[in-house]
Amino acid sequence: MKTNPGRFFEDFRLGETIRHATPRTVTTGDVALYTALYGPRFAVQSSDAFARAIGYPQSPLDDLLTFHVVFGKTVPDISLNALANLGYAEGGFRRPVYPGETLSTVSEVIGLKESSNRQTGVVYVRSVGSDAKGETVLSYCRWVLVRKRDPEAKIEQEHVPSLAKVVNPADLAGALPRLDASAYDLDLAGSPHRFGDYQVGERIDHVDGMTVEEAEHQIATRLFQNTAKVHFDAFATKETRFGRRLIYGGHVISLARCLSFNGLANAFSIAGINAGRHVGPLFAGDTVYAWSEVLETADAGRDDVGLLRLRTVATKNQPCGRFPDKQGEGYDPAVILDLDYWAFMPK
Amino acid sequence: MKTNPGRFFEDFRLGETIRHATPRTVTTGDVALYTALYGPRFAVQSSDAFARAIGYPQSPLDDLLTFHVVFGKTVPDISLNALANLGYAEGGFRRPVYPGETLSTVSEVIGLKESSNRQTGVVYVRSVGSDAKGETVLSYCRWVLVRKRDPEAKIEQEHVPSLAKVVNPADLAGALPRLDASAYDLDLAGSPHRFGDYQVGERIDHVDGMTVEEAEHQIATRLFQNTAKVHFDAFATKETRFGRRLIYGGHVISLARCLSFNGLANAFSIAGINAGRHVGPLFAGDTVYAWSEVLETADAGRDDVGLLRLRTVATKNQPCGRFPDKQGEGYDPAVILDLDYWAFMPK
Amino acid sequence: MKTNPGRFFEDFRLGETIRHATPRTVTTGDVALYTALYGPRFAVQSSDAFARAIGYPQSPLDDLLTFHVVFGKTVPDISLNALANLGYAEGGFRRPVYPGETLSTVSEVIGLKESSNRQTGVVYVRSVGSDAKGETVLSYCRWVLVRKRDPEAKIEQEHVPSLAKVVNPADLAGALPRLDASAYDLDLAGSPHRFGDYQVGERIDHVDGMTVEEAEHQIATRLFQNTAKVHFDAFATKETRFGRRLIYGGHVISLARCLSFNGLANAFSIAGINAGRHVGPLFAGDTVYAWSEVLETADAGRDDVGLLRLRTVATKNQPCGRFPDKQGEGYDPAVILDLDYWAFMPK
Repeated sequence: MKTNPGRFFEDFRLGETIRHATPRTVTTGDVALYTALYGPRFAVQSSDAFARAIGYPQSPLDDLLTFHVVFGKTVPDISLNALANLGYAEGGFRRPVYPGETLSTVSEVIGLKESSNRQTGVVYVRSVGSDAKGETVLSYCRWVLVRKRDPEAKIEQEHVPSLAKVVNPADLAGALPRLDASAYDLDLAGSPHRFGDYQVGERIDHVDGMTVEEAEHQIATRLFQNTAKVHFDAFATKETRFGRRLIYGGHVISLARCLSFNGLANAFSIAGINAGRHVGPLFAGDTVYAWSEVLETADAGRDDVGLLRLRTVATKNQPCGRFPDKQGEGYDPAVILDLDYWAFMPK
Repeated sequence: MKTNPGRFFEDFRLGETIRHATPRTVTTGDVALYTALYGPRFAVQSSDAFARAIGYPQSPLDDLLTFHVVFGKTVPDISLNALANLGYAEGGFRRPVYPGETLSTVSEVIGLKESSNRQTGVVYVRSVGSDAKGETVLSYCRWVLVRKRDPEAKIEQEHVPSLAKVVNPADLAGALPRLDASAYDLDLAGSPHRFGDYQVGERIDHVDGMTVEEAEHQIATRLFQNTAKVHFDAFATKETRFGRRLIYGGHVISLARCLSFNGLANAFSIAGINAGRHVGPLFAGDTVYAWSEVLETADAGRDDVGLLRLRTVATKNQPCGRFPDKQGEGYDPAVILDLDYWAFMPK
Repeated sequence: MKTNPGRFFEDFRLGETIRHATPRTVTTGDVALYTALYGPRFAVQSSDAFARAIGYPQSPLDDLLTFHVVFGKTVPDISLNALANLGYAEGGFRRPVYPGETLSTVSEVIGLKESSNRQTGVVYVRSVGSDAKGETVLSYCRWVLVRKRDPEAKIEQEHVPSLAKVVNPADLAGALPRLDASAYDLDLAGSPHRFGDYQVGERIDHVDGMTVEEAEHQIATRLFQNTAKVHFDAFATKETRFGRRLIYGGHVISLARCLSFNGLANAFSIAGINAGRHVGPLFAGDTVYAWSEVLETADAGRDDVGLLRLRTVATKNQPCGRFPDKQGEGYDPAVILDLDYWAFMPK
């Protein structure tokens, strides 16, 4: 068989390593599309002059563009037959990525757990994105619910990995070059608020909303070479429980992150991803809003930047002035994303 | 408060200077998107080889791409609470901009005029787009109708600036490098008509039409980092008088300019903007047409290029064979844009 | 008249040469858009590092991006008044094209044949895309059905050219640099199947489907500077027999080619186009599927790569598990494209 049917749950082996296709050179063309699709305004990523003034050689890629490119490669091998993307943990960006670099991804199967009904199972992978020299630029874990081809298939080895609830900020502190925080121009950056201005427990409604069109999420998801058919095939998805195309969860993450500029304009770089959950589906025509909470601050042992641990919650078709959140066992029905991450901010 | 609520009318001070976020390095990625969104075909901007043959170091950016990037930065500070973008004047492009350059914008408040009902006021700004060295690449005035936060707020200083009806072409003539007009290949450029072939009073129906989709104007408007929520939020705009997203006026300007290639193929560079008015709103699904009139010609003191003063009128859902125009006190209901500008054309 | 009305059938002269506007410098911005619009995953075009490892100086453009740019230039002169794009033949890519190169197109009228009803006629052209030095990068023939302005107009010279059914693979073998097939990494490329693994007669269902949105095909078609109004003007096309915008046939070719990655991942470069027919129209909202058949294999006199002659059939709103194909005199009603081409694959 010449086509890739995707792996089913019983095809994964604990500890195996999967080298994913397709390596991808990222360019200023990708950066322009990322800007056009999400509207990021973080000055470091937007302006080479701004980036150079504080110590970068040029503007780095938006961290989530790196994430999506690294993630996209895993789809044909890991999640083509997935029913749900259950979560993320232990995400760490190791260094900035620049236009012209080539990214590729390798995943290790770190956990397998069959569901009690034997129809499906949870696959845990640690995916590592590397540059052309093989050096890591990003590492993260995710777990997905994958169909079994044959419910009767016996699973030899099961293991549920123990993953950190929060990435240790000390492990993330080296991800940025040493910066000249005094050259960081707050007017140009769009906010007067530095690291010290944020308090644990503070909540910020990011105010703005962004409606998503079918063309937009398809253009984005193809840019990342993510091949999950549920995002692209309106004919086949008529027969699914949603009856229509489902938007790539990463699209929501990028929208929420870009909306968060309004309130977090100086949180210019994501250092790590502690946890992420796609609480509900997003469809074309829906409008995304977001709010954030400061969960923790960390000095990071640097005098130029600190680390804010942020929780960003995205909703659909509901502005976030009342901070829609967890409710009882679940969530307010408008919530679609709950993301916990570390971001650098100048001191 | 960490988020930007935007300024209300009483927050502006006559003579104050506002340094806008976010500086932006423009790239060939932006050029590709501009091409994909509007379909420009001016040879100078499309081909490095063509541009070099006549004396440019490489293809410059389309002038309107520069305009939109410079304009976009002003939105969070000037027009987030604007009800209408009333007009443009005294626009001048100082030199070509090339991929790799970083643009930023500073605005000066040059006029304030409270409305008689005290609910709103008109803010006049002169916005200056600069390169990384701080040298001006574009300057223009615009005035917008902005809400007051508090109708009772007293306005200390009012002033209505006196703006030129037409930019003096002598002030624009230096915006291009000296060109070798004999190397300007009319076949490759797409039209045999040079500067001397256009007569004052001549009217041209640009024939073609372009239908606009929600995804297209959103992608464009985000590319320019323009944050006006009326362009992006279908949920919130359900409650507005239009009941839907309104397309960024600059999107119409670029569509009309690109349609005008068919008839003005050699008017390859915009030198200045004399006046511009968004006569009516444009919505997704509408089809834009345009026609132009030659208002004036100017020698510009150069032997390589002359300046045509053009008036380009755009309509929606009405082809322009009959040149829909002003009617009585207003306009033909199909008209959405009335733009008066200077463009260079080879002699 | 300053605008281009397009040529009618009686305006063409046998043997005449037409230099088309607008030359176009292709960039990594165009590459990013091509990726975002179609989702190609061929490793050679996606990764500079992969391309260099096997002997390219960097990633070349996707061959179809070159094709569309070269093709787009011919539209204002050849097919603005065309009723149908009837076929392609004798297509040959001469060498890889790289970002930064400038492409322009010249066409020769190689055939003219008036229709029996005298309302229309078929125009045959050979179009040659060249680089800035004037060296050919792509050559192909196409023939289109063009309206007559005046049915009574007398056609002086008619000629139906004799075109090869299949391009001789020996004429295509020099289109690629010498490659190091041993450095071609099958994991990174996404498939273990090399040239020798494909058999004549083998059929492959490419499985995946891609739904097309209005914004997507418009963005693509403008990127290629293709000006055919039938793709862009929803207002005017309400009066046509389809009552709506028709999607550029090349959009279908690129979609089918990108879908074919799943099954033909190592057929990374198109060498020649033997024949192509747009069997049916595609509209926004339709979902495209594809299947391929191996028609022939050719050694190409090289020890690094061989040539597969492939036939790729695209359908709309019908998956290709049953290989929808010709039926009687015509085709299964779901079929929209029948393309016969040569592709390189590593040995």
